[in-house]
Amino acid sequence: MNYTLNNLPERTVKPREIGLSMIMDKGLSIRQVEDMLETAGVHIDMVKMGWATSYVTPNLKEKIEVYQSAGIPVYFGGTLFEAFLVRGQFDDYRRVLDKYNLSLAEVSDGSIELPHEEKCKYVSTLAQQVTVLSEVGSKDVEKIIPPYQWIELMQAELDAGAWKVIGEARESGSVGLFRSSGEVRSGLVQEILTKIPYEKIIWEAPQKAQQAWFIKLIGSNVNLGNIASNDIIPLETLRLGLRGDTFNHFLDV
Amino acid sequence: MNYTLNNLPERTVKPREIGLSMIMDKGLSIRQVEDMLETAGVHIDMVKMGWATSYVTPNLKEKIEVYQSAGIPVYFGGTLFEAFLVRGQFDDYRRVLDKYNLSLAEVSDGSIELPHEEKCKYVSTLAQQVTVLSEVGSKDVEKIIPPYQWIELMQAELDAGAWKVIGEARESGSVGLFRSSGEVRSGLVQEILTKIPYEKIIWEAPQKAQQAWFIKLIGSNVNLGNIASNDIIPLETLRLGLRGDTFNHFLDV
Amino acid sequence: MNYTLNNLPERTVKPREIGLSMIMDKGLSIRQVEDMLETAGVHIDMVKMGWATSYVTPNLKEKIEVYQSAGIPVYFGGTLFEAFLVRGQFDDYRRVLDKYNLSLAEVSDGSIELPHEEKCKYVSTLAQQVTVLSEVGSKDVEKIIPPYQWIELMQAELDAGAWKVIGEARESGSVGLFRSSGEVRSGLVQEILTKIPYEKIIWEAPQKAQQAWFIKLIGSNVNLGNIASNDIIPLETLRLGLRGDTFNHFLDV
Repeated sequence: MNYTLNNLPERTVKPREIGLSMIMDKGLSIRQVEDMLETAGVHIDMVKMGWATSYVTPNLKEKIEVYQSAGIPVYFGGTLFEAFLVRGQFDDYRRVLDKYNLSLAEVSDGSIELPHEEKCKYVSTLAQQVTVLSEVGSKDVEKIIPPYQWIELMQAELDAGAWKVIGEARESGSVGLFRSSGEVRSGLVQEILTKIPYEKIIWEAPQKAQQAWFIKLIGSNVNLGNIASNDIIPLETLRLGLRGDTFNHFLDV
Repeated sequence: MNYTLNNLPERTVKPREIGLSMIMDKGLSIRQVEDMLETAGVHIDMVKMGWATSYVTPNLKEKIEVYQSAGIPVYFGGTLFEAFLVRGQFDDYRRVLDKYNLSLAEVSDGSIELPHEEKCKYVSTLAQQVTVLSEVGSKDVEKIIPPYQWIELMQAELDAGAWKVIGEARESGSVGLFRSSGEVRSGLVQEILTKIPYEKIIWEAPQKAQQAWFIKLIGSNVNLGNIASNDIIPLETLRLGLRGDTFNHFLDV
Repeated sequence: MNYTLNNLPERTVKPREIGLSMIMDKGLSIRQVEDMLETAGVHIDMVKMGWATSYVTPNLKEKIEVYQSAGIPVYFGGTLFEAFLVRGQFDDYRRVLDKYNLSLAEVSDGSIELPHEEKCKYVSTLAQQVTVLSEVGSKDVEKIIPPYQWIELMQAELDAGAWKVIGEARESGSVGLFRSSGEVRSGLVQEILTKIPYEKIIWEAPQKAQQAWFIKLIGSNVNLGNIASNDIIPLETLRLGLRGDTFNHFLDV
């Protein structure tokens, strides 16, 4: 650290099971990745190549290697899994994971209809090849899943072999866990937490107010995802109570 | 491509008349331009130096050359044309176009009052020097142009020698084609399309929801403009049905 | 300049007392700083390491030196001052300023309760070590300070030795000077200006509409702060009447 501040909340260090920050890469250049690693590499637990952006970025292989050399696992957004699945190309998808030496993969059904039992089978199958992140929640604003069902889905996907479950929010933070205004569905989150340990959940929370809300509810070491590449340092200050939004929260405790 | 996905919508390739992506540069550094070209150069048809940003960027000549070396035409935002015109410096403007070896120029009247016959004369005059993009629509939220007049203006400007006409939206996507909320004036767009071929129009559509709307209406190869430099890869996934917003649209067809 | 446009409003040049642009750095890499300086260094008067981001950026010392080599003073956001103060580490804070050879510091009470007389003492004390910027306004949306009190606070802090006073807005532009929608509290600003000379105030104004509003009220050479690193060129065009938002304002005068 550059200087010493007393009585800061304690942060976990990498590699860790809680306090994870998952970053969204939606088309960074190699230099932009290097810049991000220089300033914030120590705070990045994993990087998601957002949805199917990996299909149209020419620097994919080299970029993945830059991340991996820095010890940061990379995975493809769940929409890519769905794009392969809906085309009957699941086996191709598994080969693509190997081609890029990926150790993580996401299973989701945000844009497709997939019987839940089948989804869980994909979790199990992929779990034999990689570590699986399994996402719950639709990208469709009109599909409201009641809390008890979020819990059932999450539990079943963990039972099927998912390392963590992800609560859907999109890049914009306006569906799934959130109202279209970006406001947290706080009752939903609190009910989920009565049954699923917070250690097993990564909350997609791209907006600052959303991040602050989860930090105040769960603590500095909540797992957060879909963090924009230039919001990693700001997020770290929120976790430490060093930004206005969480400043007084950590002084009170 | 990095891997093969079956049954994707067909995309045109550069140089092309449809499926154009026009990118907004509002002050990028040389390295940022290089980064953008590395990740997305193949998807960029032309670059606009937004409004009169070219006046205050010290790296202008070198930057234009970087774009041109990559085969990407550059032009100045219409506001710069208007800034010269309103000062009685139209001839200076023509000399500036030559000084920077520009092959494209925009004619607009978003911030000034300009009799339409005169505007068309500027289109004709400039068309002898460069390829002309002609923009319709005011930057003033209070100036609502009825659909039949959009059509008349567009047709007259094409007749005067414009290569394409541009539908105004500003960098923010909140005027002209759009309500101040960013919502598309869908009736306006649909009425325009009954008379002006979509091949001749570039729609300024800086917001993701606007881009998705035009892609769903007109197809993967709609011409779109005012795309932010870090939204080129995301836009390309929308065009290919590889992002939630257009995922199911292209599976249905 | 790249070309000549007649009858532009006159801009001050650095070093200056009015027309200041204060830029927010919330975690830039060295290369990103170099890029910003290449394109906009001539327009940057000072750089704020936003709130306590300096605590978590590993490249801090080197980055500050890059700015200082370019003749641009750097300072830490007021939240860092408050974080030291609230922990009883004010003397440590003074040592940190020296460690990084900083010539500027901000005194604020946006997140803490601080009797105003005490705040003014911190202004006086720090003014013996560095040039002091003193910020008025709470980060709490619910704390509305009436205009006469803004004036009293600003005057007292100037009297205590502050070089300039800053009107609070946060990075988002939604508190203090602004309503939560981002709209300017115009009556507040106009009343302040009846008593405090505009030369002594820096208005935090991160949003374009806010910047345009202040430029139209006070002129090209209003002091503005919390400018995002990629908005410096756009701001400069607003100041010169070379963007739609202020285009006609400067033609009229």
